Amino acid sequence: MSKVGVLFIGALGYIATTVVAGSLALRKSLCKRTGMVTDLDIFSGLRLIEPDDIVFGGWDIRPGSPLESASTFFRNNQMLDPGIVSGIEDELNALSVNFFPGTARSCGRTIERMAEKSASGECTLRALVDKLRHDINSFRNNNRLKDVLVFNLSSTEPPLNLQHCHTELSAFEDLIGNNRCEAVRASTLYAYAAILERCPYINFTPSNAALIPALIKLAEEKDVPVMGDDGKTGETLVKSALIPMFRYRNLEVLSWEGFNILGNMDGRVLDDPENRESKILTKEQVIGNILGYAPHSKVHINYVPSLDDQKTAWNFIHFKGFLGTKMSLQFIWQGYDSILAAPLVLDLIRLMELAKRRGESGIMHHLASFFKAPLGVNEYRLSEQFRMLTNYLNQVNKT
Amino acid sequence: MSKVGVLFIGALGYIATTVVAGSLALRKSLCKRTGMVTDLDIFSGLRLIEPDDIVFGGWDIRPGSPLESASTFFRNNQMLDPGIVSGIEDELNALSVNFFPGTARSCGRTIERMAEKSASGECTLRALVDKLRHDINSFRNNNRLKDVLVFNLSSTEPPLNLQHCHTELSAFEDLIGNNRCEAVRASTLYAYAAILERCPYINFTPSNAALIPALIKLAEEKDVPVMGDDGKTGETLVKSALIPMFRYRNLEVLSWEGFNILGNMDGRVLDDPENRESKILTKEQVIGNILGYAPHSKVHINYVPSLDDQKTAWNFIHFKGFLGTKMSLQFIWQGYDSILAAPLVLDLIRLMELAKRRGESGIMHHLASFFKAPLGVNEYRLSEQFRMLTNYLNQVNKT
Amino acid sequence: MSKVGVLFIGALGYIATTVVAGSLALRKSLCKRTGMVTDLDIFSGLRLIEPDDIVFGGWDIRPGSPLESASTFFRNNQMLDPGIVSGIEDELNALSVNFFPGTARSCGRTIERMAEKSASGECTLRALVDKLRHDINSFRNNNRLKDVLVFNLSSTEPPLNLQHCHTELSAFEDLIGNNRCEAVRASTLYAYAAILERCPYINFTPSNAALIPALIKLAEEKDVPVMGDDGKTGETLVKSALIPMFRYRNLEVLSWEGFNILGNMDGRVLDDPENRESKILTKEQVIGNILGYAPHSKVHINYVPSLDDQKTAWNFIHFKGFLGTKMSLQFIWQGYDSILAAPLVLDLIRLMELAKRRGESGIMHHLASFFKAPLGVNEYRLSEQFRMLTNYLNQVNKT
Amino acid sequence: MSKVGVLFIGALGYIATTVVAGSLALRKSLCKRTGMVTDLDIFSGLRLIEPDDIVFGGWDIRPGSPLESASTFFRNNQMLDPGIVSGIEDELNALSVNFFPGTARSCGRTIERMAEKSASGECTLRALVDKLRHDINSFRNNNRLKDVLVFNLSSTEPPLNLQHCHTELSAFEDLIGNNRCEAVRASTLYAYAAILERCPYINFTPSNAALIPALIKLAEEKDVPVMGDDGKTGETLVKSALIPMFRYRNLEVLSWEGFNILGNMDGRVLDDPENRESKILTKEQVIGNILGYAPHSKVHINYVPSLDDQKTAWNFIHFKGFLGTKMSLQFIWQGYDSILAAPLVLDLIRLMELAKRRGESGIMHHLASFFKAPLGVNEYRLSEQFRMLTNYLNQVNKT
Repeated sequence: MSKVGVLFIGALGYIATTVVAGSLALRKSLCKRTGMVTDLDIFSGLRLIEPDDIVFGGWDIRPGSPLESASTFFRNNQMLDPGIVSGIEDELNALSVNFFPGTARSCGRTIERMAEKSASGECTLRALVDKLRHDINSFRNNNRLKDVLVFNLSSTEPPLNLQHCHTELSAFEDLIGNNRCEAVRASTLYAYAAILERCPYINFTPSNAALIPALIKLAEEKDVPVMGDDGKTGETLVKSALIPMFRYRNLEVLSWEGFNILGNMDGRVLDDPENRESKILTKEQVIGNILGYAPHSKVHINYVPSLDDQKTAWNFIHFKGFLGTKMSLQFIWQGYDSILAAPLVLDLIRLMELAKRRGESGIMHHLASFFKAPLGVNEYRLSEQFRMLTNYLNQVNKT
Repeated sequence: MSKVGVLFIGALGYIATTVVAGSLALRKSLCKRTGMVTDLDIFSGLRLIEPDDIVFGGWDIRPGSPLESASTFFRNNQMLDPGIVSGIEDELNALSVNFFPGTARSCGRTIERMAEKSASGECTLRALVDKLRHDINSFRNNNRLKDVLVFNLSSTEPPLNLQHCHTELSAFEDLIGNNRCEAVRASTLYAYAAILERCPYINFTPSNAALIPALIKLAEEKDVPVMGDDGKTGETLVKSALIPMFRYRNLEVLSWEGFNILGNMDGRVLDDPENRESKILTKEQVIGNILGYAPHSKVHINYVPSLDDQKTAWNFIHFKGFLGTKMSLQFIWQGYDSILAAPLVLDLIRLMELAKRRGESGIMHHLASFFKAPLGVNEYRLSEQFRMLTNYLNQVNKT
Repeated sequence: MSKVGVLFIGALGYIATTVVAGSLALRKSLCKRTGMVTDLDIFSGLRLIEPDDIVFGGWDIRPGSPLESASTFFRNNQMLDPGIVSGIEDELNALSVNFFPGTARSCGRTIERMAEKSASGECTLRALVDKLRHDINSFRNNNRLKDVLVFNLSSTEPPLNLQHCHTELSAFEDLIGNNRCEAVRASTLYAYAAILERCPYINFTPSNAALIPALIKLAEEKDVPVMGDDGKTGETLVKSALIPMFRYRNLEVLSWEGFNILGNMDGRVLDDPENRESKILTKEQVIGNILGYAPHSKVHINYVPSLDDQKTAWNFIHFKGFLGTKMSLQFIWQGYDSILAAPLVLDLIRLMELAKRRGESGIMHHLASFFKAPLGVNEYRLSEQFRMLTNYLNQVNKT
Repeated sequence: MSKVGVLFIGALGYIATTVVAGSLALRKSLCKRTGMVTDLDIFSGLRLIEPDDIVFGGWDIRPGSPLESASTFFRNNQMLDPGIVSGIEDELNALSVNFFPGTARSCGRTIERMAEKSASGECTLRALVDKLRHDINSFRNNNRLKDVLVFNLSSTEPPLNLQHCHTELSAFEDLIGNNRCEAVRASTLYAYAAILERCPYINFTPSNAALIPALIKLAEEKDVPVMGDDGKTGETLVKSALIPMFRYRNLEVLSWEGFNILGNMDGRVLDDPENRESKILTKEQVIGNILGYAPHSKVHINYVPSLDDQKTAWNFIHFKGFLGTKMSLQFIWQGYDSILAAPLVLDLIRLMELAKRRGESGIMHHLASFFKAPLGVNEYRLSEQFRMLTNYLNQVNKT
């Protein structure tokens, strides 16, 4: 059977690196499937692809190789077992042929400054899209792949101000044709190229420029499944489990303050207020949506290099109970962002491949539980989102 | 329309005091319904009784009056507004006529030592049960009540070792007849008396001696609704919201340690390892039941007088994710136990009265979300328990 | 014996209100001296003034009265005993005669916007200084006071960029004469007026415009004791106790992140980045000064209205130990800012009055332990600062 | 120059293993001196021995080798760099010749149960002491050592009830002669043997049976420096820095609750209430001693295997300030016990060798800052203890 290809945007980043290293480690039984949702019993009836069936590749704007990225990641994070990298060195090296220079076009100064190996140069948007389509096809042909999936794991871009030209497909195509660089970001171009090539597309970042309404329509037309935005891995995951409690108990949330500190590349990019704005937008909507009212609430993100990938988040929740009494709940989350994200990416690869095989198209609502700001879904409560997933599985199993 | 009576076991304790004071304050619009589940929109169609429709009374083994209890509670807990007590002094005083001496029979040394005003003396179990039934009837007749509900809000008793005689009704009645004091606790006698008098009965405490299987059968026979055990107000509430998250994400919980400190009467009684055992049993089962496996987990409870009613709980959760990486989540809960419990008791009064009116009997499974160890229910996840409640409401609204 | 007067800048703020209310409550034995440093045994030999010996007054830019301020403060902070206010209503009312309209001249937009009752108008700096001197003299004469002390308890101003004209007295006087409003802030004018009137002056705020070098020289000339900056009441207090531990153990601090949330007027003013800058400057210098090197460190302050005066601070300290191992310490401080500050203000009143009586002048180095950024002192370690205080007491007791 | 020998009691434990591994790593420049107090500038003038000058050996009651211990330690604690062990394998192996079977005589059931390789058998106390003296001399002669130091790093024994026979030297010698096993513990025999052999002795554990008064007298007679008890590495270190703050500010500590969880051998032994009692005794005295009064205070220690060496401690401090207002401070300490202890042991080796060389004898008061319960010292404040050390250094530098 031919294999399935996965192209990562941001392929040298920590998350992509962990997905690739973890996948190789799984093949060699160097680790278990802990953290993978699709390893739960409820998935046991399904035929999902296995790590052995996947070929990885991708784009990045920085120089480097998969092996270098993995070595850096494991060296900078004391909790990780360096034995894993040494056990998969050859396989990591072999992947380099599937790596292409990426583009940082219109990504904002902080990301553009990192783009030592950018493919964007001075060419037009149309030429850039063609280049990305060409990369996809090379990858597909060189590896004789049945299907290719594209995952956006790159740094958070500044928010894109959505207008009519992002809503209607023809207006969007004019925009590309007229080379209106200010109306797109790099993630838009990747998404456009992927969907044109009929590649299922996941936006694992908060960048709203990726799955704009026009491209979702295109995905529906082309029978391509897509989903996003922003993988739900840590603080927001906890919030989506906790907030319903206050609602169920009719306790009035007065304030919900969240302070995040982290030190990886994500932290560095989010130190720029412009990029941070995107992240905070996806992180903050969960509270009001679940509670039905908007308490005082702010999410703060700060760059603390010594933590590297170990995101630490303190949340202070002030609430009012009976007789007007004020009480509080605090939580402190200490998790490795990429270690938490990687198994979810593997899950999404398996579930998006399934959806493609089953002929599904457009927004994959049943994957809402994987995202901070699930596209097309108004349900933010973790338990109810998980129920959407199990309902889907029941339906799949019946057919 | 005639009113509904509510008799509290432990009527001078903090929870009962807060229910009574809160109820009077609601009648006078001195406070809002924050913290009351039955104030949520989903209950809006139902005809539930109002604070005005309730007459309070109860038993206690300590001397004192409702007004004294309320004054102590508000004085010892700086967060409370003393204006509330002064606004309801007369009403509190008027309640004294509905108070009866309680019994601490077979409740263990710590509780028995507190029993300055015990009604138990040297009389037989049968005589004690008769005395309690007589109290119920006096209360009913004096206040011309339609129905009387009995709520166990007393201190946690040591666990009762359940045997055949607690399972079969006839064996249980022999036990009473033979005056086998070692085979019951005070809570058993109250429950027996209440059910014989067809009073809906709630065990808001962890004491397993209250709703033993034989008495649940009796409740079914007599068309009496009952439910327990142990009101879910704080640490366990948070746990029942958080634990499913680890399961949904396939994160392996390695250890879950809970440290509770509190300084009220409950804290004092739980300082005795014998009584604490009951509490820890209801608190610890939630983890294994939700996860499906048993991580290292202990709940610790310690008496810290300066906190009075402000229970503070630290939970440390150690878990393993992808690539075997250890991570942690901690939470700190600072809540007033009685302030959290009281509105739930008001909810249960309203919902048990409804159940009685509707002719329901035996275990009220739909009330599982209110309890740490819900009788007859295997579902410990808060969201799923809440769904059980909404399903019930949908059914009621249809009929 | 004639009494001592104390004039507060920001006399209707929470701190001033708590000092006044606490002082009246002490006279009536409604509270104890907990939190007052001068109540420690080491002060027992000294003759310090008592609450009975003090007459309070002050300036504010907002309308209101001492009684209104006290009522608001006690109502908004559930932990406080409202009985205290009702016990001192008459005394609070009697103080109104000692209150003058204040000035917000050059205090930045956020403070100026609050100035409903400002005395500044369009007049010159010289006229403003004369007005303040006149207020001091009225207060002194009306109450037949031996001495008057001036305490700056007002909101934090934006930092003043110090230049030559702030260093030399004659240049400073030219600046006033030439009405160079952009080169002063309100706190400069108060300090200047106070020192000219030979009033001991305390800058309890971070505003660096108050005790500029030129005015310290003037204080030395006029035999006036002065001290500042910024009362050390909470997070920084804890830091000055904890940081030396890392130094003594040769543990390398990698990062020290501090997140402060609070909801009083102070919090509202500090929500303006301009004003916050002053505060963060005094808060951040303590780490580098004690450690001898500068780890990654940031102090964040955010306005969370529901907390009112209950400042809550989370500090995350990341440090490296033997074999390069990273470890962490976190602390969570939950303290009432004004309740912590007020007894220190009472201490400073007593110790500044003593200093004046003893003929001391200029910077009071021995009071370093009371301040976040002690003027003229390079010692930031709490224990060593306390030793400076006890050394001073030993000297005083000898003479 | 001949070298200095160090014999560890508990030589295969985590702390001893870290000292040895760290010392070898320092020789090879595989790590830095972070965490070593004697690396501070204030020690720069002194001639202290270097890692190169030390030969390690010791006793243990468990089978194993230094290499096995180090491998286990690094494997079980994800934060550690396994590269260190592989860099020193040969050197670790070479140390095996200096290892002797230890004794667990009268150490309580939990420790005795671990003693797979005990030397105690059925022999008399006198024979055991002779055996230990023989070990010391073999070690000294085989390695041609100038001096030998003995460090107790073994598991905490249950407390020994001190009587007359532990106070007077002749009574103590009778006790040994009469083979009164119930009146000693293993640590007593080690200390006795060490001092008889004129080996400086450090009790880094809370076991009070080690440096009993009779043996301190013997140390004075024999010109042997000794010190203890219980290395101050984590929670108590923080407390000794923080508690003075409450005293200096006259804030009344109401309650100080400490919860420790850890998963190493120390944690396993302390899970036995008998052994835990010793630890809690040394941990609890610091509060009352610094404050001058005894607030409600308890230290809890619980065994949580998944944490291994990463001790995690939550402390909740409830205190009262002005106007009777209750406030709180919490801290969470996450440190690796052995990583924190090892550099202090290296410091103590260097400073005890210096003391021996300088002819000092008996209790080394200037080392108080290294211990939770410093022998012969009433000063528990970290800063003041550190001052005792710097005073000593000043004196040494003068001579």
